[in-house]
Amino acid sequence: MLCKLLNYTPLTLASNAIRQSHDNQNLSDSMGDLIGDKDRALIDRVGNKMKHSSTLEFLNYVWEIEMSTKTLLAFTRHRIGISMTIRSTRYTTQKNKGKHQVQDTDKTKDYLKRIMDIVNEAIEDGLNNDEISLLLPQGYIYKGQIQFNARSLQHFFKLRTKSDAHFQIRELAFNLFDSLPDSHKYLFEDIINNNIKGK
Amino acid sequence: MLCKLLNYTPLTLASNAIRQSHDNQNLSDSMGDLIGDKDRALIDRVGNKMKHSSTLEFLNYVWEIEMSTKTLLAFTRHRIGISMTIRSTRYTTQKNKGKHQVQDTDKTKDYLKRIMDIVNEAIEDGLNNDEISLLLPQGYIYKGQIQFNARSLQHFFKLRTKSDAHFQIRELAFNLFDSLPDSHKYLFEDIINNNIKGK
Amino acid sequence: MLCKLLNYTPLTLASNAIRQSHDNQNLSDSMGDLIGDKDRALIDRVGNKMKHSSTLEFLNYVWEIEMSTKTLLAFTRHRIGISMTIRSTRYTTQKNKGKHQVQDTDKTKDYLKRIMDIVNEAIEDGLNNDEISLLLPQGYIYKGQIQFNARSLQHFFKLRTKSDAHFQIRELAFNLFDSLPDSHKYLFEDIINNNIKGK
Amino acid sequence: MLCKLLNYTPLTLASNAIRQSHDNQNLSDSMGDLIGDKDRALIDRVGNKMKHSSTLEFLNYVWEIEMSTKTLLAFTRHRIGISMTIRSTRYTTQKNKGKHQVQDTDKTKDYLKRIMDIVNEAIEDGLNNDEISLLLPQGYIYKGQIQFNARSLQHFFKLRTKSDAHFQIRELAFNLFDSLPDSHKYLFEDIINNNIKGK
Repeated sequence: MLCKLLNYTPLTLASNAIRQSHDNQNLSDSMGDLIGDKDRALIDRVGNKMKHSSTLEFLNYVWEIEMSTKTLLAFTRHRIGISMTIRSTRYTTQKNKGKHQVQDTDKTKDYLKRIMDIVNEAIEDGLNNDEISLLLPQGYIYKGQIQFNARSLQHFFKLRTKSDAHFQIRELAFNLFDSLPDSHKYLFEDIINNNIKGK
Repeated sequence: MLCKLLNYTPLTLASNAIRQSHDNQNLSDSMGDLIGDKDRALIDRVGNKMKHSSTLEFLNYVWEIEMSTKTLLAFTRHRIGISMTIRSTRYTTQKNKGKHQVQDTDKTKDYLKRIMDIVNEAIEDGLNNDEISLLLPQGYIYKGQIQFNARSLQHFFKLRTKSDAHFQIRELAFNLFDSLPDSHKYLFEDIINNNIKGK
Repeated sequence: MLCKLLNYTPLTLASNAIRQSHDNQNLSDSMGDLIGDKDRALIDRVGNKMKHSSTLEFLNYVWEIEMSTKTLLAFTRHRIGISMTIRSTRYTTQKNKGKHQVQDTDKTKDYLKRIMDIVNEAIEDGLNNDEISLLLPQGYIYKGQIQFNARSLQHFFKLRTKSDAHFQIRELAFNLFDSLPDSHKYLFEDIINNNIKGK
Repeated sequence: MLCKLLNYTPLTLASNAIRQSHDNQNLSDSMGDLIGDKDRALIDRVGNKMKHSSTLEFLNYVWEIEMSTKTLLAFTRHRIGISMTIRSTRYTTQKNKGKHQVQDTDKTKDYLKRIMDIVNEAIEDGLNNDEISLLLPQGYIYKGQIQFNARSLQHFFKLRTKSDAHFQIRELAFNLFDSLPDSHKYLFEDIINNNIKGK
């Protein structure tokens, strides 16, 4: 499943915000966009440990992703600090005839194949996009672009890397984490490790 | 499809907010929760015509509703001034065996029946809830509780009563409007009439 | 300082949302708006202990309040689940000549009196509202109407009843809590008690 | 007054989102971060004219700014798509003794000078930061870091470049616009020109 980081903000935007707030820019050890060790630790200390997490909102991440309808539905529950644009089945279903894909599992593969055969039959029968969309299963894959800031991403990881999360959104969460710049991962590692260890 | 208004805020909460802002509570002609004619007109004039729509945020509406998965998906695009709790298929799919319903159309009825037969077969075969959910079509009906404030509801009506909106979310929008208290409808009528007349 | 609860949602709106989600409305022991003991415990268990706090968004509280400019400024940091309408000094400063008030302390009383004398002098000298507002001290009292939902109110209490919060916003937080219906206080008590005990 | 753009997102993040949605990436004429003419026009057409303004949320702008307390107060009314970190007077008032500044006007200059003399006297008298802050006038200048996305920035410009907006927030709005990258200004020009011409 596609999960490609397209853009992200340099860490210095967060450390600069914190130093603004405390009026100690003179202590910064960053050079331009290159974060210094002190500033790096500062972000973690203030944004995470001291709970001034609003400073993490200056760090934005944008991905090109694929996800199942099941996963997309879960985003009705993530409304803050997130932006997304999803391929509309209202305009592309007939057009992409024969290219529709699903995210399945060993146990659901055959059922999903039979369902997609019915979907493709309806496409052949000339139903319009708005009608066909009613037939698409929740395993159906959407493509799109998504943006989190570091604060909303922490919240997403906290809920969605838990062992009791649905396995598809959990997979998305881990893919998002893996595709982050290595230098940013320290902001999220504790959250994920706590969840893996069963909190 | 179920669309039952459970609770709403008296209009006086909006008129009182406006009179606070302008410091002219002495001009209010409301009695307790009973809105007066002047206050009623004031809400429309300030909230709608003068664009101080933040005063409309004090009016909240809560419904018990049913909607298709297709409609629920659209709520990933409505994130402000909305709260919702939706029945989780993760906990209820096996439990509600034989009671699953879809919102169909003349042209999709047969296809959807065949798809739901496959879903029910998978339920019989003992697939777990997280797997079965991948098979559910976008016509599948969810039940839940939803809240809008008058400002976000205006926005929802503006986008979703348009003639080019998907027919199912359009139906939901009209049902929400119809179930509003008559005395509140004047806040939304112009928006809907403009859309019906093709803007 | 004025802090008067104008309106609130019955607890049953939250318990009904939770029972919708779990599909066990048959277990509800509420009668109309009158919350039952089981439903009451359910809200606390699911909304607080199990962290499904989105169900608390159905509970809205509206107050008429007074607060200092200092306190109002802090609301630039509370943006989710809050609505407010504040008396505009842009329209009311000249009009309310002689009625402007400040929230002071023993140590600031004299300084604030001298500053307000200067403000009143400028009003007498005919400066317009937009200019006069630049002179108003942060002790100056605004009047307005504010709305929280139970989720955002929990967050507000968590941050603003701490012993290291500014004493004026702390006072507001305690006043908001005290003016809640007794039957709703259990949703917030633990948060406040933890802060009083120094967490 | 300081208004320095620190960071912004390439326009291609918006055009890529739109092309994702319409599934026509093959029509893109951008090269890496370098926006092409077609993509540039697409953002305007879809984001502005066709009202799919959610695609503008992928464009973020971060500034280091100074603004008066009066202006900062107005941000209690801008809650969506905005992040800010402001220097805290709770920690810096005593520390910055003698360096406090105000944004004044010809008519308020003398009054503000007299008020700041009282503030400085209170600082000398040893009042603590939380007390001194109650004395600070709304002309007092705060420093901080602020982020808008293109959608929320359009909304801000629409309200705050109007001729009847307070002159200080209007000045901020024009400064924000002037400091945008030239290639991004076309997203905001119509809004501002409409306001200048009196709508």
